[in-house]
Amino acid sequence: MIRRLAVIGVGLIGGSLARALRAEGAVGEVVGCGRGIENLETAMRLGIIDRYTHDIGEAVEGADLVFLAVPLGAMRSAFEAMRGHLSPDAVVTDGGSVKGSVVRDCVAVFGEMPPWFVPGHPIAGTENSGAEAAFAELYRQRRVILTPLPETAPAALTRVEAMWRLCGAEVVEMAVDHHDEVLAATSHLPHMLAYTLVDSLARMKENDEIFRYAAGGFRDFTRIASSNPVMWRDICIANSEAIGAKLEAFASELTELSDTLKRGDSDHLLKIFSRAKAARDRYIDGVGQ
Amino acid sequence: MIRRLAVIGVGLIGGSLARALRAEGAVGEVVGCGRGIENLETAMRLGIIDRYTHDIGEAVEGADLVFLAVPLGAMRSAFEAMRGHLSPDAVVTDGGSVKGSVVRDCVAVFGEMPPWFVPGHPIAGTENSGAEAAFAELYRQRRVILTPLPETAPAALTRVEAMWRLCGAEVVEMAVDHHDEVLAATSHLPHMLAYTLVDSLARMKENDEIFRYAAGGFRDFTRIASSNPVMWRDICIANSEAIGAKLEAFASELTELSDTLKRGDSDHLLKIFSRAKAARDRYIDGVGQ
Repeated sequence: MIRRLAVIGVGLIGGSLARALRAEGAVGEVVGCGRGIENLETAMRLGIIDRYTHDIGEAVEGADLVFLAVPLGAMRSAFEAMRGHLSPDAVVTDGGSVKGSVVRDCVAVFGEMPPWFVPGHPIAGTENSGAEAAFAELYRQRRVILTPLPETAPAALTRVEAMWRLCGAEVVEMAVDHHDEVLAATSHLPHMLAYTLVDSLARMKENDEIFRYAAGGFRDFTRIASSNPVMWRDICIANSEAIGAKLEAFASELTELSDTLKRGDSDHLLKIFSRAKAARDRYIDGVGQ
Repeated sequence: MIRRLAVIGVGLIGGSLARALRAEGAVGEVVGCGRGIENLETAMRLGIIDRYTHDIGEAVEGADLVFLAVPLGAMRSAFEAMRGHLSPDAVVTDGGSVKGSVVRDCVAVFGEMPPWFVPGHPIAGTENSGAEAAFAELYRQRRVILTPLPETAPAALTRVEAMWRLCGAEVVEMAVDHHDEVLAATSHLPHMLAYTLVDSLARMKENDEIFRYAAGGFRDFTRIASSNPVMWRDICIANSEAIGAKLEAFASELTELSDTLKRGDSDHLLKIFSRAKAARDRYIDGVGQ
């Protein structure tokens, strides 16, 4: 049971957590914090939060659980704003897509990794954003990765785990660096490919025509290129090393594929495509995501 | 009105054409031709075709319209098999995803570009295949690209255009090479990216874990990697030059993006992502595909 939940950033991610916990009767009061008054008023109207403030220090006062759902580029200033305002029993966790940078920001502000901070990343989302997009079921049967450090208090970890399980999520633990590597491969790289493809087509002279002949598959393939550009700029800066390495490795793979085409090596092409199809059919459709 | 339609390859593409024309009452008899007896029996049971044969020569006898919906790698032998069996009034068209190779195959077999052949490409499909997957509405509000040559008889072109319009498609004309360039950019390159990504992840040691943490966006992004590997091997071989060039250009773009990350140039990242989002939102969702 959470007495008072402070949600810093009441968008899809933060708002859905509040909704899920409310639906379970697992939270007393929810305090929202953000910049945009319109979004906060929407969150009030929808019953996601009980009250709001624009001040992070004020928002966390008296809260026993603080959820940081701000863009990665705003994490450091959020930590700064809450310093000196947290309750002695407060546990803080976050929803950032990169964990190394959040840990670095936290340590930079507090001088060491505080025992009450549990870095986390719910693997869930939709292409929509804002409080209006939040819904209680977002985390059901989704995975939430927590990346506790040696300094993290076991009791804090237990409370954050319990919170996510109440939302219907499966909680897994992972080392910070490993999280950032895995996400670079499965999420950050695909986003870079989709953005780069759409941008390169858009920069072609005859781009009107190009897009006109894009078939159904193109729409699905490029859906992630409609994601929030600011959020993805922040992810790139926060995880630049891992993403850069993946980009370079992938560029080499494409050059190799081009060589295979030049050689007319149809057996090798068939092998690549068959292996990919088998993997996708097995892992992706198999797990029903 | 088509007296007798011969469909060579009664799968999603060929079967849907037959169904659409039947639904319009625009065809007398439909003769199916293929190798697999089970698929042809399914097509009979579903009323897609009236009778079938495994022999292409026999299938085209007496047909006034022949639709070639075989894999690109089987086009040449299909032309060879129909030589000497076509009616004097027969018009032949095809559904191949690459047009240069089909034209080359046709010219190789007939010694010149025959006036009765209209190369075509309906930009439509689903991830399903076989007669069972065929449906009359597949081509509605879809584009069909025809790539007639100077040798093509205007009357043949008119008949093929009329046939596709009856199916609800929008017919456009394009030069052969231009078609293959445009499709390399909008369809062949994205398929190569999806296949390469899934294959590279599948080859990683910890691939079980990698796929487990793939989020929703990954599923959409990689859907096209579940496409038929044989069909895509054929497309690669048939359009290897244009696809190879796109792969190399794209590899350079990724290397540039990696440099942008290394420099930490967040303004440039934001510019790329914003431009891509705007293009996709405008062109893709805007046209309602």
